Amino acid sequence: MKLLYPTSLKLDVESLKGFSVDLQPYDVKQELPENLIDADAMITWTNSPNNLKDAAGRMKNLKWIQSLAAGPNDVLSAGFDASKIKVTTGSGLHDWTVAEHTLGMLLAAARKFHEMRDYQTQGKWPQHLGGPQPDRPAGAFTSLRDANIVIWGFGNIGKTLAPWLTSLGANVKGLARSAGVRNGVEVYAEDKLSEILPKTDALVMILPGSEATKNALNAERLKQLPKHAWIVNVGRGTSIDEDALSKALDSGDIGGAALDVFQQEPLPGSSPLYKQKNVILSPHAAGGRPQGAEQLIADNLRKFMAGQELKNII
Amino acid sequence: MKLLYPTSLKLDVESLKGFSVDLQPYDVKQELPENLIDADAMITWTNSPNNLKDAAGRMKNLKWIQSLAAGPNDVLSAGFDASKIKVTTGSGLHDWTVAEHTLGMLLAAARKFHEMRDYQTQGKWPQHLGGPQPDRPAGAFTSLRDANIVIWGFGNIGKTLAPWLTSLGANVKGLARSAGVRNGVEVYAEDKLSEILPKTDALVMILPGSEATKNALNAERLKQLPKHAWIVNVGRGTSIDEDALSKALDSGDIGGAALDVFQQEPLPGSSPLYKQKNVILSPHAAGGRPQGAEQLIADNLRKFMAGQELKNII
Ligand SMILES: NC(=O)c1ccc[n+]([C@@H]2O[C@H](COP(=O)([O-])OP(=O)(O)OC[C@H]3O[C@@H](n4cnc5c(N)ncnc54)[C@H](OP(=O)(O)O)[C@@H]3O)[C@@H](O)[C@H]2O)c1
Ligand SMILES: NC(=O)c1ccc[n+]([C@@H]2O[C@H](COP(=O)([O-])OP(=O)(O)OC[C@H]3O[C@@H](n4cnc5c(N)ncnc54)[C@H](OP(=O)(O)O)[C@@H]3O)[C@@H](O)[C@H]2O)c1
Repeated sequence: MKLLYPTSLKLDVESLKGFSVDLQPYDVKQELPENLIDADAMITWTNSPNNLKDAAGRMKNLKWIQSLAAGPNDVLSAGFDASKIKVTTGSGLHDWTVAEHTLGMLLAAARKFHEMRDYQTQGKWPQHLGGPQPDRPAGAFTSLRDANIVIWGFGNIGKTLAPWLTSLGANVKGLARSAGVRNGVEVYAEDKLSEILPKTDALVMILPGSEATKNALNAERLKQLPKHAWIVNVGRGTSIDEDALSKALDSGDIGGAALDVFQQEPLPGSSPLYKQKNVILSPHAAGGRPQGAEQLIADNLRKFMAGQELKNII
Repeated sequence: MKLLYPTSLKLDVESLKGFSVDLQPYDVKQELPENLIDADAMITWTNSPNNLKDAAGRMKNLKWIQSLAAGPNDVLSAGFDASKIKVTTGSGLHDWTVAEHTLGMLLAAARKFHEMRDYQTQGKWPQHLGGPQPDRPAGAFTSLRDANIVIWGFGNIGKTLAPWLTSLGANVKGLARSAGVRNGVEVYAEDKLSEILPKTDALVMILPGSEATKNALNAERLKQLPKHAWIVNVGRGTSIDEDALSKALDSGDIGGAALDVFQQEPLPGSSPLYKQKNVILSPHAAGGRPQGAEQLIADNLRKFMAGQELKNII
């Protein structure tokens, strides 16, 4: 049994030892050398498209790919033979870091840090943004306290985020494929969307990229949100109709958008989102640093050796 | 008994009724009319210096001032006769809102939202701030998780903030006038400063403005912080030597500063802080919106009528 691990991040390889497995490092940006082609399993992280395409064509023994990404769209589209190869995701390794980024975006939006920044770079003091002000006025998203926050895509990341929002005083609801109470949060299925959206102050989207989630937030659903509602997207850019979003921002039909993911990345310079008011952009920066990867790999490696069902299997 | 309440914020006056007290509204930006001069007590919020000075000279019956500010420096410097008049603060009314702003500033600093904003306004995608990146590298403040965060001035606001930081994974310590464990957080007295500062990733200052706190963070103490440490100040601007701070930023002796309060407000356009790298400015915007004022006023009004000791007395 031979397992390839990537040199594209710092892995504590000691934590993967103890199995009858030959552990071999590899460069994720190059085609694999001859001596690694016969590996049974490989861990992927930020592999180049060419590396994956080459591996898909040449690795005849491959039975398992452990991606460290939560949404391994790269592996899934590289041409591996799905009938022979199991793919497991890094879901769980990004919960904390994506949830932290999301919380930061929500607070930046409520507290208008983006507007303050623009005054700062001009050497100006934005008097109207400071000093005495109304406390949580109706029809505005100015605080997480008492805000209605909906997490659309209530998976591992959402479950990490929810208790933080709750302790900051928000009323948190979830939206997912099936309804029920999860981790103390009321989660609704999408048939309840048109009841929930009109009562939402901030909509946090953490949906995976798939055909089913494409343009999940479209023009019609944008219209159902209150005019002051903010949208935060840290899932995949494909889940928002960006043209419809830009229009809704222009017409004042929504309050603002804090976006970490986009239909096309890098977001093209021609996108109106760069210049629109009440838009906060971050360059797919929420995750990108798996935490606890060794634990997941070792756990799945043990299961693989024992012929047991793997964790995070697609 | 006559009590004056300000019209400078929305107060639910119904919640103050039930005592044998004549409740009278007043304009905090004008001199008091003759018929209000004989009041026994007054609530202050964003009064003009002239209003307070006039009141100090003319209100001969005044026995109690309830400020809604956490640090009522305006009332204290207006010339009221301290031997006759009790002053109570609005400490507690700003805990949540200042703590929320502080958390936002910490996350903005760690996640570099200020840098991303500058790229956004130029229509550019900051590739180096997104995508794959090292997880919590040593010598950098990139996440609250596992960060050593010290709250200097561990009062009402600090106690609200601390559990949020803890649930985000930070190691939280406090600094105050006396040592001991408060709300589960280890609080140190200032004799331990030079032990604590060198191990600090983010120093959150929530000190009141007073002679004792003047330039609490001076050149010497700035030097004791690690080069990557961020400073957040939401207490009073006087507690930081701003010139020393600017020098430390210039020389790279500290990581950055997120400031809501300043020695002079508005911060003069000539201040180097506007243009220095890794500085996040907000225009005294953390508080400014008392929450639960009626509860505090009614409580203290009852105590006042009963001749009991008031809450938040200076
Ligand atoms: N911005 C970044 O840097 C970054 C980093 C990491 C991950 N991500 C993205 O975040 C996504 C979510 O990560 P995760 O770990 O939380 O995933 P997860 O645990 O698999 O959760 C996904 C959630 O989305 C829901 N969902 C899936 N398809 C849906 C559909 N068609 N309609 C409605 N809900 C649907 C699921 O519903 P059920 O619970 O009912 O199945 C589940 O609640 C990843 O797929 C990835 O694309 C982004
Ligand atoms: N930015 C804003 O918009 C905003 C809004 C509201 C308040 N504030 C500021 O925040 C300050 C703190 O508010 P708070 O409600 O948390 O006050 P608080 O409950 O009175 O707490 C003050 C804390 O500071 C400590 N302290 C006081 N003098 C000190 C000294 N000389 N050396 C070291 N520590 C000292 C106290 O120590 P002990 O506990 O040992 O007594 C206490 O822990 C206010 O005074 C106000 O200036 C700013």
